[in-house]
Formats: sequence, C-alpha cells, structure tokens
Amino acid sequence: MRTLFSRFHPTHSRFRLISMVHSKPQPASNSKVLVFGAGNFGSCLASHLGDSQHEVYMWAREEKIVKHFNLLHRNPVYLTDHSFPLNITAVGPQMPHRNLINSVDVLLFAIPTQFLRATLQTLRPSLDIDNLPLLIFVNKGIEVDTNALTLEIIADTCGAEIAKAATFISGPSFAKEIVERQPTSVSVASFTETEADKAAALFHQPHFRCYTGVDPIGIELSGALKNVYAIASGMSDGLGFQNNTRAMIITRGLSEMTCIGSAYGASPLTFLGLAGVGDLFLTCSSSNSRNYTVGYRLGKGEKLDAIIETLGSIAEGVPTTKGVKKIIDELGVQAPIASSVYDVLFSGKDTRAAVRELMELPPSRELELPPTAGEPARRLLAKLGLDTEQLNHLKHSNT
Amino acid sequence: MRTLFSRFHPTHSRFRLISMVHSKPQPASNSKVLVFGAGNFGSCLASHLGDSQHEVYMWAREEKIVKHFNLLHRNPVYLTDHSFPLNITAVGPQMPHRNLINSVDVLLFAIPTQFLRATLQTLRPSLDIDNLPLLIFVNKGIEVDTNALTLEIIADTCGAEIAKAATFISGPSFAKEIVERQPTSVSVASFTETEADKAAALFHQPHFRCYTGVDPIGIELSGALKNVYAIASGMSDGLGFQNNTRAMIITRGLSEMTCIGSAYGASPLTFLGLAGVGDLFLTCSSSNSRNYTVGYRLGKGEKLDAIIETLGSIAEGVPTTKGVKKIIDELGVQAPIASSVYDVLFSGKDTRAAVRELMELPPSRELELPPTAGEPARRLLAKLGLDTEQLNHLKHSNT
Repeated sequence: MRTLFSRFHPTHSRFRLISMVHSKPQPASNSKVLVFGAGNFGSCLASHLGDSQHEVYMWAREEKIVKHFNLLHRNPVYLTDHSFPLNITAVGPQMPHRNLINSVDVLLFAIPTQFLRATLQTLRPSLDIDNLPLLIFVNKGIEVDTNALTLEIIADTCGAEIAKAATFISGPSFAKEIVERQPTSVSVASFTETEADKAAALFHQPHFRCYTGVDPIGIELSGALKNVYAIASGMSDGLGFQNNTRAMIITRGLSEMTCIGSAYGASPLTFLGLAGVGDLFLTCSSSNSRNYTVGYRLGKGEKLDAIIETLGSIAEGVPTTKGVKKIIDELGVQAPIASSVYDVLFSGKDTRAAVRELMELPPSRELELPPTAGEPARRLLAKLGLDTEQLNHLKHSNT
Repeated sequence: MRTLFSRFHPTHSRFRLISMVHSKPQPASNSKVLVFGAGNFGSCLASHLGDSQHEVYMWAREEKIVKHFNLLHRNPVYLTDHSFPLNITAVGPQMPHRNLINSVDVLLFAIPTQFLRATLQTLRPSLDIDNLPLLIFVNKGIEVDTNALTLEIIADTCGAEIAKAATFISGPSFAKEIVERQPTSVSVASFTETEADKAAALFHQPHFRCYTGVDPIGIELSGALKNVYAIASGMSDGLGFQNNTRAMIITRGLSEMTCIGSAYGASPLTFLGLAGVGDLFLTCSSSNSRNYTVGYRLGKGEKLDAIIETLGSIAEGVPTTKGVKKIIDELGVQAPIASSVYDVLFSGKDTRAAVRELMELPPSRELELPPTAGEPARRLLAKLGLDTEQLNHLKHSNT
C-alpha cells in the first residue's frame, strides 16, 4: 500500500502541520508591495496590484525605464499600450534600500530564473527573518548548470526557513489580458499553507481568481516543463498537422509531465491544475508564446541558431529542455516527446523524422506512473531541513 | 489510509484479475468488422479500418445511404468529400442477419447513446456468448431518463458478462482529420484488459495510436461531461472573453470533471488522459464542435430554442447537462460551472450574469476531491455481478 499511496501524494503534502517561519501579519487591504522585475509579467502583476489599491514599488534594472515609468506611467518596453495605475512607483536601477525592503509587506520576484541566485544573494543581508515580508515567486524554469528549482536557489541563498515560507504563483495568464481585466485564474502554492492563503488574498479579485495548494515542487516543475511541450506543439503545427495531433501532443505531454513530476516527488494531481494543464494548454495553442514560435519555425524548416537570433527575447523552453533531459535520464523516466525535442534542438535531428519516430512507438498503457518516486524531492526537502523520519511519522499518522 | 487510497483508485481497477468472458480469438490481421452506424464518426472509423486492410461492413438505417455508398464509395451525408476504401460494404436498413453477426470478429457500435438500448435489445438474440465478437463502443453521453452509462445499458440488454467484456474508445479525434491520416491518439478501455489490447491491435496504426486502460467508467464519464464544459467554453468566447478565460474554464472544468468522476467511482487520473483532457481541449477550442457552437451562440445572446432549431444536428451536451445536474446533486459534489450551464440552458439564466457569479465565488483550494467516493460505480459493478467482498479482498491483497 505504501508504494501505491506514495505515488499519489507528494513527498511533502503534509508539511503544513510542521511549525514554520511565517511572514509578518498582512494588512486586510492596501498592502505595500515591492516587485522585482519590470518585464512583461512583472509589469502586469504590478499593474494588477496597483489596480487592486495596493501601494506598489516596481524595481527595474535600467535607469531609463525607471525614469520613463515615473514620468508617464507607461513601460517603454512591455505592454507599451497600457497606462499603469498612478499608485505604482518605479525604483532602481540600484537594489532597493534595506529600509524599503523592511517596510514592505510583500516582495514579489518576477525576474528570470537565471538571475535569481545573484539577486537573492544581494538581497539576503537586508532580510529580517523575524519581520519577513510575504515572499512570492513567479519566475519559471530550471537553473542552467545546477538544474536547481527556485526552491533550492532560495534555500542556497536565504536558508531553508525562508525557502519553506516562499509562495509560488503560476497559471494560464497572458500579461496583456490581465491588464485588461480579462477573467484569469492562477495556482498559488507554498509548503506553508497560511503563506499561500496570504498571497491569494493579496491578488484575488473577481477577474483574477487564486486557487491555493501545497505542492510548490509540482507547481515549479509544471511551469518549467510546459515550455518543452509548447516547442513540440509548435513543431507539429509548423509541419502542417492539425487539431487531433495538437490535442494528442498536449495530452501525451501532460502525461509525460505527470510521470516526470511524480518521479521527482510532486503530486501527479498538481498537473491537473491551472499551473499544469491550464498553462500547458495556453502555451501550446498560441502564437503569442515564444516557445511555441521556436517550435513552429523549426517545423517550417528553419535552424535553431537563426530562430534564436531573430526572436528578440529568450525562449525559456530551449535551456529548460537541456535541464529536463538531464532530469529524465537521471530518473530513468520514459519521456519520448521531451527527448525528441532535445534531439531536434541539440542533436541536429530532423523535425519530421522525430515526429515519425514518435508515431512509430509501440502501443502502450495510457498512464504508467514510475515505480519509484520522489528521490529528487527528498534530497531537496532534506536541504530544507525536513527529515525523513518526521516525514514518515506525519505520513502514517494521517493514514 | 483506505479513504485516501480509494480516492485515487477506481473502485474497479483490479478487475482484470477476475476471470471474465473473452471475445473469440482475433486474427493477426485482416479482421472482419461490422460497424453499426454510418454517421460522422462511424463512417470515419469504418474508413480507418478499411484503410487498415480489414474487411468492413457498415450498417446504415437508411436504404438510400446503403445504395449510394455501395455504388459510389461515398457517404452522401457525412465526410462527403471523402472517397472510402473499396473493402467497405454498406448493409441495411434491416438489422444485419445473425449469420453475418456470428461471422464477424468485431462489432463496433457508433450510434447515439439514446438509440443504443433498442439496438442491443434487437441484437441480443443473435449474440453467442461462447463465440462472442470483440465489442467496441464509441458513443458518448448519458441515457436520458435513466441517467445510465453505456455499461449499464449493455448490462440491462445483454447481461453482465457481456458488459464486462465491452471495450470503449474515446479521445481527441475529429473524423475529417482521421480519414486524412492526420496523426491521432485515443484511449481504449475495458474492465477486461485483454479485450482492450485486442481493440488497440485492431485500430493501431502509426497515424492512429491507441493507449489502453482499465477504467471504462472514467472514459465514459469523460466523454459525456466534456460536452457540458464545451458549452461553457463557447459561452465565454461568445461573450468576448479571451485566452486566459478559456484556459481557466478548461482547467476548472477538468477539475470539476475529476471531482464528479471521482465521486462516481472512476479514477481521477483517467481525466488526465486522451479521453479526458485531450478531448476536452479539442472540443472546447474548436468551432467544429456543435456543443461549443451552442455555447458561443448563447454567449452572443441567442435563445436556446432558436439555436437548436437551426443547428441541423443534435448537440449531445444539452441533454447531457440535464443528466449531469442530477448526478452532481445526487452525489453532493460542487460543480459550479456545470450548474451554471444548466441554469443558462434550462432555467433561463442570463449568460453574462452566470459568468459573473462564477467569478465572484470565494477563493478555494485547487483540487478538493470529494470525501466519499464511488457509490454509483459500486451500484453499477454490483449489477455486473462484482461483489464488494471480492472487491475488497482484491484491493487489500494488492496493498
């Protein structure tokens, strides 16, 4: 029973029972929020929080963006048509002063995963663990070289206690539609359920619904993995295949994501949620997605170097595919679509030949969860100071 | 532990261990198949099987279709541009003779759920249980008035032994794309795993992949429920909402389907598969779907009667919504989207007001599986002669 049981429960699903660090009490309304990052998604969340009557500071790395924004209430690079609420102040390009950091209720990180470690290292001396702001992360992806999730980057730079209190937001959410108040829903997850509830209360509006959960590892993996399958979906469309084929790639991709996540130690059910299937569906079916576009142009016969050169911005799925390939090889999981995307991107495999090989695989059962599960999550959890005995005790006391 | 465990395993997931009726041995290639129904999907599957070098008979209810087809190898009503393989013979309008029925390896049922009971009643005297053809069902939906799944209709008309051997095919598969050999994948499920394997072997081609499973109740529920959410997705698009909103409806709809299915006694993981999320995604994102079109036109402000009058063919989601409403009320499951679709269709509720009310629901956890599960499945299984003690023994011997 334990083997089967553990397949369906993340290694960490009961951690909310353990006493943890909590962020300072949050005001009932009108929170003070500092957003790190003024990119597409950072700007849009800053706008949403300003629109929700919070007091918002948005840190940008470039001085001209800070000046332009404070003068005109517009971002000169992203969402350029959008007029931002007046209660948002841009700060930077220097890192915000310790006084600002300690005065805010919320720190929201909307910077690329690859820059997060350096940012947190700089920030750490300013954080007071007894007066901790609510920490929310919206970046997606796996750190190149280390293959670390954001949780691990936080643990390495800020310590396990802070990592355990971190909250993650992910879901099907084009920035342009959020600032237009188009109805949107997201997943909000943390090991510490009360932190997820605080983040949900901060963001929730009738047009922006927050659904909470306790599987941040699953939410992080969903956000990273879905970009690999968006490349596959784009490849299929670029080759001229139609609706049945795209639905197949999305579904079989979801099945692979679930197997990988489950082998990693996440709950397979997380992949049924907004950060899983919701974001996968959005990313795989829209030419607005950079990752889909990379795949589409590969399907049309262009070379990766040429695509990257002309794309204008980073398609996170490309480096993520490398990290995912390492993870699936290490875990021994069957993930033929992700492996094919890797072969096309990095081994010069012909796109059409890759699809043909996928179609020629023998028939199989629909969802085979891996026989062993959870080793990477267990290693990560050990790093967060959650020992296995305590874990087992908690698990069995709930059965 | 048992409560949690049972949430993730269909009440019936281990039945393949019990000895069951099996269809006659199937030839390695070149099977003889009789398809009941010459509609859009029946014709397309007949074409696929003919294209796969099987010997195919297709029964149609109308004499002029039979004659037209045999003369021109075209269906005058569906897939009218398609030239069918020459190894398909149309038969009808009388029910096929007992000799034909007993000579075939496979009976494939592609007729609407509402006509299935009468067809099986007529057919039953011709079926020889010791020389049973492989029985495959591709209809979707819940029988009006009885709220019965196809499994129950089969049990009522042909007996429990035959119902247990029945196999179900479902998945994201537009007929037009299948006859064009566009890559397509489907779920193939039966209580009797060897029967599912036989059906997969019959249909499998590089451009038509079959994934097998042992949760026919989940497959049937997916096929019926997804049409309700296709109406909701159409409503949202008709009202002018965009990508984030559609992704939200698909995902929250999937979550509702999973809760309903789980409460019914299916495995929640079935809804992650091709018949679940795959078909949901296809049906919710295409104006080719009649159910989506009903919702879209409701969103544009048309009245249901007027839509049904001009639609030209049945949108199964409309009667299914009535059946689903009864099921969720009986099970006490929270399914706000399905309830809203019911209110718009049958209680004259304004579409925009229904969406606004959905958005104003309080924040919640992402996936709350129901506390009790499986009563309807247990009743159905009892009808199939699978008693609860045997079931519990099997369950616990596998733990």
